[in-house]
Amino acid sequence: MAGRVVRKIERAKASVIDGLAACGVATVHEAQGRIGSLASHMRPIYPGARIAGSAVTISAPPGDNWMIHVAIEQLQAGDILVLAPTPPCEDGYFGDLLATSAIARGCRGLVIDAGVRDVRDLTQMGFPVWSKAVFAQGTVKATLGSVNVPIVCANAAIEPGDVIVADDDGVCVVKRADAADVLAKAQAREANEESKRQRLAAGELGLDIYDMRGKLAELGLTYE
Amino acid sequence: MAGRVVRKIERAKASVIDGLAACGVATVHEAQGRIGSLASHMRPIYPGARIAGSAVTISAPPGDNWMIHVAIEQLQAGDILVLAPTPPCEDGYFGDLLATSAIARGCRGLVIDAGVRDVRDLTQMGFPVWSKAVFAQGTVKATLGSVNVPIVCANAAIEPGDVIVADDDGVCVVKRADAADVLAKAQAREANEESKRQRLAAGELGLDIYDMRGKLAELGLTYE
Amino acid sequence: MAGRVVRKIERAKASVIDGLAACGVATVHEAQGRIGSLASHMRPIYPGARIAGSAVTISAPPGDNWMIHVAIEQLQAGDILVLAPTPPCEDGYFGDLLATSAIARGCRGLVIDAGVRDVRDLTQMGFPVWSKAVFAQGTVKATLGSVNVPIVCANAAIEPGDVIVADDDGVCVVKRADAADVLAKAQAREANEESKRQRLAAGELGLDIYDMRGKLAELGLTYE
Amino acid sequence: MAGRVVRKIERAKASVIDGLAACGVATVHEAQGRIGSLASHMRPIYPGARIAGSAVTISAPPGDNWMIHVAIEQLQAGDILVLAPTPPCEDGYFGDLLATSAIARGCRGLVIDAGVRDVRDLTQMGFPVWSKAVFAQGTVKATLGSVNVPIVCANAAIEPGDVIVADDDGVCVVKRADAADVLAKAQAREANEESKRQRLAAGELGLDIYDMRGKLAELGLTYE
Amino acid sequence: MAGRVVRKIERAKASVIDGLAACGVATVHEAQGRIGSLASHMRPIYPGARIAGSAVTISAPPGDNWMIHVAIEQLQAGDILVLAPTPPCEDGYFGDLLATSAIARGCRGLVIDAGVRDVRDLTQMGFPVWSKAVFAQGTVKATLGSVNVPIVCANAAIEPGDVIVADDDGVCVVKRADAADVLAKAQAREANEESKRQRLAAGELGLDIYDMRGKLAELGLTYE
Amino acid sequence: MAGRVVRKIERAKASVIDGLAACGVATVHEAQGRIGSLASHMRPIYPGARIAGSAVTISAPPGDNWMIHVAIEQLQAGDILVLAPTPPCEDGYFGDLLATSAIARGCRGLVIDAGVRDVRDLTQMGFPVWSKAVFAQGTVKATLGSVNVPIVCANAAIEPGDVIVADDDGVCVVKRADAADVLAKAQAREANEESKRQRLAAGELGLDIYDMRGKLAELGLTYE
Repeated sequence: MAGRVVRKIERAKASVIDGLAACGVATVHEAQGRIGSLASHMRPIYPGARIAGSAVTISAPPGDNWMIHVAIEQLQAGDILVLAPTPPCEDGYFGDLLATSAIARGCRGLVIDAGVRDVRDLTQMGFPVWSKAVFAQGTVKATLGSVNVPIVCANAAIEPGDVIVADDDGVCVVKRADAADVLAKAQAREANEESKRQRLAAGELGLDIYDMRGKLAELGLTYE
Repeated sequence: MAGRVVRKIERAKASVIDGLAACGVATVHEAQGRIGSLASHMRPIYPGARIAGSAVTISAPPGDNWMIHVAIEQLQAGDILVLAPTPPCEDGYFGDLLATSAIARGCRGLVIDAGVRDVRDLTQMGFPVWSKAVFAQGTVKATLGSVNVPIVCANAAIEPGDVIVADDDGVCVVKRADAADVLAKAQAREANEESKRQRLAAGELGLDIYDMRGKLAELGLTYE
Repeated sequence: MAGRVVRKIERAKASVIDGLAACGVATVHEAQGRIGSLASHMRPIYPGARIAGSAVTISAPPGDNWMIHVAIEQLQAGDILVLAPTPPCEDGYFGDLLATSAIARGCRGLVIDAGVRDVRDLTQMGFPVWSKAVFAQGTVKATLGSVNVPIVCANAAIEPGDVIVADDDGVCVVKRADAADVLAKAQAREANEESKRQRLAAGELGLDIYDMRGKLAELGLTYE
Repeated sequence: MAGRVVRKIERAKASVIDGLAACGVATVHEAQGRIGSLASHMRPIYPGARIAGSAVTISAPPGDNWMIHVAIEQLQAGDILVLAPTPPCEDGYFGDLLATSAIARGCRGLVIDAGVRDVRDLTQMGFPVWSKAVFAQGTVKATLGSVNVPIVCANAAIEPGDVIVADDDGVCVVKRADAADVLAKAQAREANEESKRQRLAAGELGLDIYDMRGKLAELGLTYE
Repeated sequence: MAGRVVRKIERAKASVIDGLAACGVATVHEAQGRIGSLASHMRPIYPGARIAGSAVTISAPPGDNWMIHVAIEQLQAGDILVLAPTPPCEDGYFGDLLATSAIARGCRGLVIDAGVRDVRDLTQMGFPVWSKAVFAQGTVKATLGSVNVPIVCANAAIEPGDVIVADDDGVCVVKRADAADVLAKAQAREANEESKRQRLAAGELGLDIYDMRGKLAELGLTYE
Repeated sequence: MAGRVVRKIERAKASVIDGLAACGVATVHEAQGRIGSLASHMRPIYPGARIAGSAVTISAPPGDNWMIHVAIEQLQAGDILVLAPTPPCEDGYFGDLLATSAIARGCRGLVIDAGVRDVRDLTQMGFPVWSKAVFAQGTVKATLGSVNVPIVCANAAIEPGDVIVADDDGVCVVKRADAADVLAKAQAREANEESKRQRLAAGELGLDIYDMRGKLAELGLTYE
């Protein structure tokens, strides 16, 4: 069933995507009901990046990065490449040449449940990657995969055009159709957090701000 | 047996604690006879932090961070929060709001055998964390745990008031009652190391400085 | 069969070694036919180092770093220490004192399929290490190993005098006898990549530059 | 978004499901184009079981097995319970009492990306389980999850009513709508394999049966 | 601080120990409030064993099994050897000769957070072992450890004389002083479970037996 | 450098190979100086097999089992297939059809640092496999590897014709040229062990049989 490329995908509104980036992964994840996190092994190659974009998905055979070339042609400005190997694989599918090409198409970053290499160059280019491994071991170009099909990446189901949010806390996916709603909730959450932050900084306790003492006592918490 | 909070714990002397911080984890670990290291999966969220403090311990249910609020009330200036989930868990129990509250109480950092999030904010705030994972996946507040009870954290037994030392090499626990003695040994070790360092830098070999050649030959080491 | 030290090993030419360092791990790995990578768990203790050198190998018992002292005497300027524990082990075999000694002998770095400690000091000294773990847990000096014997380190076979290349992408070994040939191929590869990089940066697609469309179609790739 | 129970789900035809069980996981996986495998950490608690059934899915909080009780009410004869914890978790969610209840509803087995316990009893009862861990550490009943919603279990996307096939090789999911088609292909594959098996057993080589020599030579395989 | 052997330890009553064995790990773990489980990587070398006994503890250097000989002299009939290496280690510390010696002293089994070997012989001898690994890689006898000191084994704190319960679900530790009380609770739990088992087998639902429907609705569970 | 098949390899004497099988992995490993163990993740698919044979080695691309067909033609009666994927891979490279073919050539088993499938059939056929994973996820036939070249398999260096010994304790490699010598030492070890076993079974302690008390006291072991 490999060997398919879907050319036309729907994307969320740019302003919604950028709003989600500003909120960050942890807030977005909470705002949509504590769902959508990719597995914790997905780590950034350098600290400080915070992006969001529309997923252009790649289902790739193990140790074969041919489909990334195919996927790059499908990129629009603001997209993020999201690659899942069909079985687990740590090979370095992606390096500075592919990044150069992706940047030329306006790509904002790569999320890959496998390996990446040339990370020094990628860091200097400012092209952020979240990956399972950094690994110089390269790949071949011999077998077909698919582009812009639904994938499971790092234990999260992702469809082409879903919004990917990524920062130092990891990666989160937001269903395209839910993106505007999730943004609203995330922004409300942020506003609410700011007042809490000030009270906590002043020394008030969460036990009091969130009125937890009664419920804790009721469940049997005892102080000695 | 969960649901207990011990309010009053003994702590080591502040000068001893600060002395241990200055020695660092590797030296302290050696000084007390190569014991006390937490497992090597406990990594700092940013490089360069070196702290010591008294453990305020938290035994927490999986995916439930309620007890951190309870523990923060028990903090004194100079303390370190130490959290062990009852079964293994990578959830992000702790983020910038809790750090704001902990800092307001004088807390020096967090050691958590689980996940942490908002690491960009925590880094900017200068609040150091040693954790098993960085993970945006959040937690609930539904089940009791305990505060200031003995715990096992990352394969080390820790009692409330024990001294926690943490730096880029990981985390080490020193029994409260042993702290002054361990400090003395660690400082002696450091003094001794300085002279060794100078001789080694000048090109002398450890084989000669430590007089190893005879014992190696006796055990049968052969040169070809 | 432990307890052997081989004093005299062959090394590759210094200019070849330095040329390989300049090419970097990913390019060298490709140039020699996608072989020689050490396992992806071998990570640098700080970003940005890129070195090559001749392997002085150490086969060490678990939790015993005695042989490192023996190996340091065998170092020549430009060498890299490469340590493999006989069974898997994460102990911190190496710290700042040993690094001081190794630097005094002209050693360029350490590759160790086990743990390292004092990483803050090592970073300040600019002594790069690629390791499986950072771990304060120390070692003893009680049992013999061997120096400059063939080893398997992080799933790669390494002989004394082989060229080790290491950077942010990990570690790669080049057989000593192949080093000049691999360097020539790596440099050819780099020259070729530069022109590709410019075309990709200008927006040309890999699909066209590498003339992939026909072969993809022949294998059955379909666009929807 | 937790807290939903979908009562009515579509199921594949019983004869199709039973046919898939007879083919086994490896054949079904190949027949549908090498997709659908759950991660290799999903292992049976005892050897020899081979089942297929309709997925009744459970999305469960970490360390909380409440939703299994809810799911059992939704079971029909021939179903398989499939549980994914929202973040990674190894707790023992399921034991002999729940198995007793599930068997009373005609349940054929459990697939759980977490822990199971009472495995001696489950083995004696002949209730097969594929799990990530065997772990006595139990769970609580405090937080809602969902039943019969789409889940990602062990890196595979599963919808309620999809066909689950499980045997000693692991677990595979077949989309409900594809089940009859996949069965036909799997059975064709089996028929074809039988003749191959006889020729191979007689000493013919795959190189000849599959006519590989020419293509291997063309790609450059050389014999020395 | 290594090099200590404590000769005299307190043990729980034999009848209590045997009662705990009959209850099994999962029940004992629940009866004492869901605590005491060793990590899930502790697996039996063969299925079907169910034992309990008093812990004779061993703190061992990495790759060095000398202290097991020392510990065997401290064994009394009904004891279980419990070994924790000071840092993580998978070496095969224990084989059929040591088992022969342990059996001669009345030892009931071994719990080891490291490796074991000769597992075919051990299986034939009926000497059960729960371990982290099966590994032929052997050990040396060069460095001291301690016997009958408090240890942390597979993330659980164990003191000499504590009761170890082990079966196919893993391993659990019961504090010696709590053993009689935990047994009473475990037996009460078993009695209670039997009636539940019969009702569940007859088709009643846990939702009704445990009266869960109201609380689930109150928390917002919705049926579609 | 892939794409090579070496047709002619040297093998050890059949009687030596069979002698090593009778000794088993742990004894052989000790007899040759505690070297040669493959990593502990190499586990048998069923208990009780104990084999030895000459290695026919396979270096295979990730997720591509084509070279197994090539290797089977190179098999002689008494050989063992040993496969190492170039980067880490868990795919199921091998199943019952390939086993049928290998058995027809007199192959004694498979050692594979990757996945295997059809394990129920392989068990019924009595074809033993030691593998890293059991995984239904299959492979393709698109890229060349090599046969009968030196490989590193599960962190052990193996040359074609080396003797592989495998049983429930794992897998060990013996250099072909050392095989007769290792056998002699292994058999001497076994003879020696038998008398020790009888003394230990009679209740004598290893402390006395091996005369350890003096050395332990000298190193500072203290009894309390």
